[in-house]
Amino acid sequence: MNTQADTFVETLVIGGGPGGTPAAMALAQSGRGVMLVEAGQGLGGTCLFSGCIPSKIFRETAFRRHEAARASEFGLGNTPSVLPEVNWSTVQSRRHRILAQRSGGALAKASGLKRLEVVFGRARLTGPRSAVIERAGEPIRTVQFETAILSTGSVPSPLPVPGADLPGVLDSDKLISIGFVPESLVLVGGGPIGIEMAQIFAQLGTKVTVLEAAPRILGPVDATLADLLAHHLTDFGIALETGVKLTKIDGVEDAHQVHYTRDGKDHSVNAQVVAIVAGRHPNVAGLGLETTAVKHGPHGINVSETLETDEPGLFAIGDVVGNPMFAHWATAQAHAVARHILGQPAAFPRPEHNSAVIFSSPEIGMVGLTEEAARASGDKISVAEYDYRIDARAQITGETLGRLRIVYRDDDHRVLGIHVLAEGAADLMGEAALAVRNGLTLEQIAASIHPHPTLTEAFGITALSALAQPPRG
Amino acid sequence: MNTQADTFVETLVIGGGPGGTPAAMALAQSGRGVMLVEAGQGLGGTCLFSGCIPSKIFRETAFRRHEAARASEFGLGNTPSVLPEVNWSTVQSRRHRILAQRSGGALAKASGLKRLEVVFGRARLTGPRSAVIERAGEPIRTVQFETAILSTGSVPSPLPVPGADLPGVLDSDKLISIGFVPESLVLVGGGPIGIEMAQIFAQLGTKVTVLEAAPRILGPVDATLADLLAHHLTDFGIALETGVKLTKIDGVEDAHQVHYTRDGKDHSVNAQVVAIVAGRHPNVAGLGLETTAVKHGPHGINVSETLETDEPGLFAIGDVVGNPMFAHWATAQAHAVARHILGQPAAFPRPEHNSAVIFSSPEIGMVGLTEEAARASGDKISVAEYDYRIDARAQITGETLGRLRIVYRDDDHRVLGIHVLAEGAADLMGEAALAVRNGLTLEQIAASIHPHPTLTEAFGITALSALAQPPRG
Repeated sequence: MNTQADTFVETLVIGGGPGGTPAAMALAQSGRGVMLVEAGQGLGGTCLFSGCIPSKIFRETAFRRHEAARASEFGLGNTPSVLPEVNWSTVQSRRHRILAQRSGGALAKASGLKRLEVVFGRARLTGPRSAVIERAGEPIRTVQFETAILSTGSVPSPLPVPGADLPGVLDSDKLISIGFVPESLVLVGGGPIGIEMAQIFAQLGTKVTVLEAAPRILGPVDATLADLLAHHLTDFGIALETGVKLTKIDGVEDAHQVHYTRDGKDHSVNAQVVAIVAGRHPNVAGLGLETTAVKHGPHGINVSETLETDEPGLFAIGDVVGNPMFAHWATAQAHAVARHILGQPAAFPRPEHNSAVIFSSPEIGMVGLTEEAARASGDKISVAEYDYRIDARAQITGETLGRLRIVYRDDDHRVLGIHVLAEGAADLMGEAALAVRNGLTLEQIAASIHPHPTLTEAFGITALSALAQPPRG
Repeated sequence: MNTQADTFVETLVIGGGPGGTPAAMALAQSGRGVMLVEAGQGLGGTCLFSGCIPSKIFRETAFRRHEAARASEFGLGNTPSVLPEVNWSTVQSRRHRILAQRSGGALAKASGLKRLEVVFGRARLTGPRSAVIERAGEPIRTVQFETAILSTGSVPSPLPVPGADLPGVLDSDKLISIGFVPESLVLVGGGPIGIEMAQIFAQLGTKVTVLEAAPRILGPVDATLADLLAHHLTDFGIALETGVKLTKIDGVEDAHQVHYTRDGKDHSVNAQVVAIVAGRHPNVAGLGLETTAVKHGPHGINVSETLETDEPGLFAIGDVVGNPMFAHWATAQAHAVARHILGQPAAFPRPEHNSAVIFSSPEIGMVGLTEEAARASGDKISVAEYDYRIDARAQITGETLGRLRIVYRDDDHRVLGIHVLAEGAADLMGEAALAVRNGLTLEQIAASIHPHPTLTEAFGITALSALAQPPRG
């Protein structure tokens, strides 16, 4: 055994993803002694290694391939344009290169902070103020601390269905590492991961089926936008099977059969590859919570409004405290909790100000409340709509399928939610986040001079139109 | 002669571009009787027919061609990727189709308003409250009105240089209609139009030279961003000749020689096509201003803060009142002047809240004051910077040349200007416009939850970093 003497740090941060890393850095920058412990291959967490970043890298190639097929429409090449071949190993190399660059960049930045030590290993609490760090099952360090931040993220949820544990059935982490473009793919789960992956592989030439238990895909998304996207995906040849119950997965490595029922009737679908992307659950296994007063349930670690667990001095942020599970949400919590620990006033992020993007094509971006949620809150609200078919920029780029929906309160015109389906919606979410977070009104959006021709001018046009008309609530 | 009896309208609007059309529609929607007179081929003005829209249509093809050459980097096609041939007639057909669609759409929308009559012809004031409308030089209508809005836009400025009027020397309007991709092109003028066109044609395979009188291209743009772009353009093979004085243009249809001096030395450059894109001036010729008290100078019609001319009841908006000449600026003025005429409180747009985009690659977007202008105002200010090389989204799309610069006031952290060089900067300007127009602070941007991975999260990261550091002013 190769342990050192007990290390004392002011704050121990367990988990170096988009929650733990910025929290550790913010604390160390303010002069606090911090140890950041990461169990994975580098700083970055699920988002970087198997979540948002790799899927967007795949998406970039798939999207470019899809667009290449439209080149002749723009006066390029011979008619009809030919779909380029996919060199999948180049795509995977590109993924590895970007991940290494980003992870290395984060580590270099962290290493530049005198008061921050980054330790690669697995931290396990041994009491309310102590932990052991293990590598390959062996203890390498013991630590005592004043405060700790638990930011261990989440892991893919297994499905309690026979055959779900077959070696050829992938979870989202394994799907990211796939070494080839499958001929056919069944995705179990029609949430953001399932829909992004469905479209990526369909654009790469895979025959794709999505199985979703709920009556529609993308449950938490504005229903109008989700429906528009669902039609678009179906038109593209993706089979969206909703309202289904998975019963069994059969098969060998390269040939699977997925059995499910709908309305009591049996169905099945064959595919080369099956991937289960039906949710993630908080990662608390082996964290030693039982040696503390920290409580947790199936939805994650219980925390107060200041993200403190039931063990005073122990905080938890990010996926490990449950939904919403987003990298930027974890980061927002990280900055707030760091300020709080430093004794500074901290505005903890609120779910009704959160943003999200689904990198489908077109993208869906959303900030704040959906129409449904806003109505449920009891406020009298209206929704102002814009169809990107009339949009100058969308006509120019040839990406006219799109809709903007602004949810606002009738009495004071305060904007409660902004929802966009558009190729490029992701980058419109800054304006949406600013408006919703800061309680801005339709008048303030209308008065802002949006440049022409851009996708963002729709915000101004729509706000102005809504103000010129009586509320439609 | 086929005139009708005098028509009386409450408001006459002369010029159906992005200023006149929304003004006329807003007034008519509020019940005012309006006649909108347009001298061109349809509603839309310079922006639609020969300005921002057609240039962006060309840009879309050029950009897609350029990106196609990078396909192998993303695992698509064989190495190296081949530049697709350009079918220029397809590009021009696409332009005609989109223009017809947009102009037709505007006319259909206008025609749906009971109180608005659209007349195609040339309006000439015959006094402070009367005008005649002519078609092909023949009067077709006479009109009396209570108020009028002059929104006749601008025309390309001729250069007082021998040979500038040769038939083969194009202005920006004629460059838009060009029937082929020239082998070589000299652009006189390194402003937004010159730079956009330079890059478009360079990406299409043309050898391009830009001649600019000022010491640098893109004068009013943030100097850091303009310099970064200038280096990028030079690396791409575009010859940027700054600080030059044009002396003469020689040549025949397909072969021109442009002579200029720099630092007292003579130079010349040969090109198949020469285009003069060195500015526009207000279009007041033939408008009959001499029959009214309206005054105007080389920079346009004189107007008050409420955009009223020296002739009470006559208003002027858009390019015809001089800089800034932007479609969205004209539209913002249009909405304000319409409210003012209707007797409603109106917030007239202010130049320090204006936005602009240069559709170079990468794009430049800007809102509010440059660092230079902000310092000149006497406030103590700082600039927070972000380099898109570290950006997740930029790394994913492979477009990492970029910079964000946020100009803010040291004392209250109010954001005075936001300047972005990035592929996709245009669509980030909604957030920038909202922040600058509504006097938001770094704290408010930092507290807004920007989704990951997007180009817009740089706004949040940069604001947060600036707040964590002492001002660098």
